[in-house]
Amino acid sequence: MLELSNVAKQLPYSATRVLVPYAQAAQARGLKVYKLNIGQPDVAAPKSAIDAVRNIDLKLISYPDSHGNAGLLKGMSEYYKGIGINIEPEEIVTTVGGSEAVSIVMGATCNPGDEMIVFEPFYANYLNMAIQHGIKLVPITTRIEDGFALPDMAEVEKKITPRTKAVLVINPGNPSGCLYSKEALLELGAIAKKHDLWVLADEVYREFCYTDEPHFSCMHIPGLEQNVILIDSASKRWSLCGTRIGFVVSHHKDMMNAVLRYAQARLCAPALGQIAVEGALKAPQSYYDATRTEYISRRDAMLAELRKIDGVIAPTPMGAFYAVAQLPVDDSTKFCIWMLEHFSHEGWTVQMTPMGGFYFDAEKGRQQVRLAYVLEKEKLVKAMDILRRGLEVYPGRIK
Amino acid sequence: MLELSNVAKQLPYSATRVLVPYAQAAQARGLKVYKLNIGQPDVAAPKSAIDAVRNIDLKLISYPDSHGNAGLLKGMSEYYKGIGINIEPEEIVTTVGGSEAVSIVMGATCNPGDEMIVFEPFYANYLNMAIQHGIKLVPITTRIEDGFALPDMAEVEKKITPRTKAVLVINPGNPSGCLYSKEALLELGAIAKKHDLWVLADEVYREFCYTDEPHFSCMHIPGLEQNVILIDSASKRWSLCGTRIGFVVSHHKDMMNAVLRYAQARLCAPALGQIAVEGALKAPQSYYDATRTEYISRRDAMLAELRKIDGVIAPTPMGAFYAVAQLPVDDSTKFCIWMLEHFSHEGWTVQMTPMGGFYFDAEKGRQQVRLAYVLEKEKLVKAMDILRRGLEVYPGRIK
Repeated sequence: MLELSNVAKQLPYSATRVLVPYAQAAQARGLKVYKLNIGQPDVAAPKSAIDAVRNIDLKLISYPDSHGNAGLLKGMSEYYKGIGINIEPEEIVTTVGGSEAVSIVMGATCNPGDEMIVFEPFYANYLNMAIQHGIKLVPITTRIEDGFALPDMAEVEKKITPRTKAVLVINPGNPSGCLYSKEALLELGAIAKKHDLWVLADEVYREFCYTDEPHFSCMHIPGLEQNVILIDSASKRWSLCGTRIGFVVSHHKDMMNAVLRYAQARLCAPALGQIAVEGALKAPQSYYDATRTEYISRRDAMLAELRKIDGVIAPTPMGAFYAVAQLPVDDSTKFCIWMLEHFSHEGWTVQMTPMGGFYFDAEKGRQQVRLAYVLEKEKLVKAMDILRRGLEVYPGRIK
Repeated sequence: MLELSNVAKQLPYSATRVLVPYAQAAQARGLKVYKLNIGQPDVAAPKSAIDAVRNIDLKLISYPDSHGNAGLLKGMSEYYKGIGINIEPEEIVTTVGGSEAVSIVMGATCNPGDEMIVFEPFYANYLNMAIQHGIKLVPITTRIEDGFALPDMAEVEKKITPRTKAVLVINPGNPSGCLYSKEALLELGAIAKKHDLWVLADEVYREFCYTDEPHFSCMHIPGLEQNVILIDSASKRWSLCGTRIGFVVSHHKDMMNAVLRYAQARLCAPALGQIAVEGALKAPQSYYDATRTEYISRRDAMLAELRKIDGVIAPTPMGAFYAVAQLPVDDSTKFCIWMLEHFSHEGWTVQMTPMGGFYFDAEKGRQQVRLAYVLEKEKLVKAMDILRRGLEVYPGRIK
């Protein structure tokens, strides 16, 4: 009999897309759906990005260099220098979105059976990538009561074994929206240094920080220059998710040399996406300021409504465009499906992502949902009203 | 000490790009280089593809569905039906080029340590992908004297072990340019059926067949419908290499379900590339006819010149846009480097790909080079003249 590989059998469906068929069915029945389930920003991309694509003057679309287009690498180097990260073009390899950056770096740092520490709840596809590489993710749970802040470093050190090769940190966080403190990151850096661990720093939400401080990157940790591998993406920053352009960035020469060989094995990152992102780099500071202001105002509007609902716990996220809420329900997956199958108000319902898929043990997210505030403020307010009404009549409501 | 993974240490540089630094150095010295080293077609893409991109009317570039855009999948289904392969849209998943299609299917069919049969010389990146998945490629050598035709099937059967999970067939072939006969493919299919092997059919050069018969796909082998997984790409057919759009196609439901989960783990294939390829599907038959005629005339011109050179053996390739030539040299890698470093004629030299990297044992390709006939006829004739002149004075010439 033809048989699939063990990885193929094991690999789960995407945690953020698992409810898509229910949403499609709801729409097929004539309902409209506020989609808070995926991190698909609705803010316009920089006009210079779209124009760059519309103005291509090419007879054919040829292979870019495996590193990425020279102009793009130069532009990204300048971008990093502008935020105090001293990166030369040759310390960057362009990837197929942040996703491929994660996958390549996982493969380049860990052998099958090696361990990588992550803080949960974590971006669900980390697990799907780790499964593909045979890597054991070792989760350290952070708590909604603490706003999902990094735990005491003693907890991290307890998890380190001879097989631990890396720590994976996403900051600002998805799904948590948590922005880690500089102090906590310095402590984490000291542990990584002490134990010779790679630090995979996923900072694709860098521009979405809602404190008055600039973003503190793992690249800013003194003495950790060789350990840190930055994972970056054009998707969120410039609303260019579909371009599939990401980056691996590191000062470690052997690592970047290996990343390039991974890149050569699949030839190149998308040419048209690279053109768009090179265009996006021309966006003025006002683009970033306006986007940040917009997300803060959405977050505040959504959180204010959310907190009016009885029994809901929702810390204020200081980064990214996600909020995690604990709901007074028996099971958030059941509740999210119920909202799509059995509830509507004035022809509308709400799609959220149950948090189970963001934890190693789904039980830990049993009452939690992730809400991506990627809709206009007025829509978010209406969506929260529908959520409130739904919770009032949901049969599995607790308390 | 920070250490790289074993895969990262093992992964070779791209066989087709290994001479790029020498070519760049030659250009820096003021030489011009006929580049016959990579399969980068120079024929124009369909105008409808470029126009589709130029005419985008989008505010941002959002994530396409993990399957691929509905319009693209529908168009590809119609394309397959038009060539006698009965494929529905739900039997297709859009990938990041043929490269990702190969990688996903390798991962979904084989566990680490499993074996996959390939015919060598083979597309060098198969090995780089196999290394990443821990798959053991089991090569069966084909011979330049036979035009790289499939070997006797008894040879194939001898290589099958309990760990053999799949056979990988590229037809028309890269680097060989060989077009396999229908009879040989039927025999191979019978063996795959008998031993329950997956057949990975890389048919990205399908349109580049230079016999009077239509291309015979592995998908046309009766009774093998569940075994065959088609690997496809927009790169060569429409000169859209840089779009990074490929496809996995199969009737096997569980396999396609697994491929979708792999696809979800990295979210989606490039949005702009999908738009370009959906545009390309509108190309009239005359586009394919003209492209085919052009490549035949280039092949004939190049081969005619090549055969005038003393001591050169070069079978006529009946597919793709590659020719393999055996040269009267001590070592083709040394010769190719020498051509870039020490030889020129009237300000020009030639870049070719040494064949060592296309064999498991590089020794087998020691006297061979791959020539991609992706330049205009006149340029190919000049390039062959330079090759002839170079061979006359090369210090490592044998005979």
